[in-house]
Amino acid sequence: MADERNNEIEETKIQGVNGPITGWIDGHTILVGLMAYPIRHTMSPTMHNNAFAKLGLNGAYLCFEIDNEKLPGAIDAIRTLDMRGSNVSMPNKKKVIPYLDKLDKTSQMCDAVNTIVNEHGVLTGYTTDGMGWLRALKKDGQDVKGKIITLADVGGAATPISVTASLEGAKEIRIFNLDDDKWAQAVKNVETINKETDCVASVHHLEDKEDFKQSIAELDIYCDATSVGMPPLDDLSLVEDPSWLHEDMVVSQGAESFKLWTGKEMPVDYIKEIVAKA
Amino acid sequence: MADERNNEIEETKIQGVNGPITGWIDGHTILVGLMAYPIRHTMSPTMHNNAFAKLGLNGAYLCFEIDNEKLPGAIDAIRTLDMRGSNVSMPNKKKVIPYLDKLDKTSQMCDAVNTIVNEHGVLTGYTTDGMGWLRALKKDGQDVKGKIITLADVGGAATPISVTASLEGAKEIRIFNLDDDKWAQAVKNVETINKETDCVASVHHLEDKEDFKQSIAELDIYCDATSVGMPPLDDLSLVEDPSWLHEDMVVSQGAESFKLWTGKEMPVDYIKEIVAKA
Repeated sequence: MADERNNEIEETKIQGVNGPITGWIDGHTILVGLMAYPIRHTMSPTMHNNAFAKLGLNGAYLCFEIDNEKLPGAIDAIRTLDMRGSNVSMPNKKKVIPYLDKLDKTSQMCDAVNTIVNEHGVLTGYTTDGMGWLRALKKDGQDVKGKIITLADVGGAATPISVTASLEGAKEIRIFNLDDDKWAQAVKNVETINKETDCVASVHHLEDKEDFKQSIAELDIYCDATSVGMPPLDDLSLVEDPSWLHEDMVVSQGAESFKLWTGKEMPVDYIKEIVAKA
Repeated sequence: MADERNNEIEETKIQGVNGPITGWIDGHTILVGLMAYPIRHTMSPTMHNNAFAKLGLNGAYLCFEIDNEKLPGAIDAIRTLDMRGSNVSMPNKKKVIPYLDKLDKTSQMCDAVNTIVNEHGVLTGYTTDGMGWLRALKKDGQDVKGKIITLADVGGAATPISVTASLEGAKEIRIFNLDDDKWAQAVKNVETINKETDCVASVHHLEDKEDFKQSIAELDIYCDATSVGMPPLDDLSLVEDPSWLHEDMVVSQGAESFKLWTGKEMPVDYIKEIVAKA
């Protein structure tokens, strides 16, 4: 079967190398992957490889164009090539579950995985998106314990964020979604949280602007991960611009995965600067 | 099945990196492998990755501990992960053949492969050891065309070297082997050369020192890749130290593989210096 994806080694402009590289990407280097499609424009390799280089860790993080069809083979490759693990993203976050050996509590509740750790052939699925959000929130001086949280149209991130918040002691979580293809997932997510934790979760129609505005008035923590300020939510600019959260979340969830693979803290301020410039 | 091989990301001392790396080992990087076992102590990644960095090519070369049992899965991984290709070494050089789609002439005659190139899912096996030897020889001002060549106990390298020499127009090739497990391979190799090319090949007992000494006297080109000067050949120091050939061969055969994957010439003098120091 011919594969039309490009695997040519192309010319590039390299910065940050000032001579012969030794002690890294050598015979002892362990591979970590990111398996998704499309994926080539992600900043994740820049993030993780610069963290490896900065901390003196012999790992390398590369992207692989993996769709649902290629996914089973890609998981086999993690085992066969003794990769330390992989991130998975769309369209594989749910589909990957049957191929793993274990799931952490968050992944079980989310019914999704974004990080795989390979411990001598035993593959465990984790979900670091929520922890990344929590880390970003804590950095901003906030905590979820005992709080009322409103999540608006956070799409794929709503599930891991609300699950993590519920496991970390949030009192109440209100998820506002458009009545689209994510609605059923939100309903399922809310049921799981109510069943598995002491947190009270509910799902609301984002089209019901009165309900939304009232919730905004009552909340302790507000999270919008996608599209407030964009149609059809362009009149909801009552909420402060949450863009600080995005960048922080991306690096913070990367830092959570990095810690699972290496046991080390990613130097997040250094990495954020690199990601912002690149 | 538990895998006892280490896949921990370990601490290392990195040289050659002077700040944030951008434009390399990023989302666009294409992976090349080396599949063998044991393999972690090879210099090949240092060779290829420094060549990528020097030429500004977005590739990364990593080692994978692959034995015969893991080989089929590892070849699947080349296709699934859209790797550009891989080197293969012991114990996989022969075993890999049934999993490939095509073989070049040299690999067909050698019944072995050391380099795989992945062209959109079609895997072709090549054998660059002989071309590496030839390149090293040419650099020393020699050519095989019309020559009588004596190969002494060159083990696994005897086959690709003699096959390449025969395809490149050598007049006669005499292979001297100990009567050990490599003898049958040498006989088969000689038969193939005599059948497929105009070169006259013969296999001789290295224990027959008179025959060997006479051949040494008649030869145009002598190649010993392993053990002259070591028992049981310690009295054969009549032959000049061929150690120059070893280093040159390793980098030269790497350069041949590099060209197959990238279409570019490896900067061999730069790389030889790095390999010598590391």
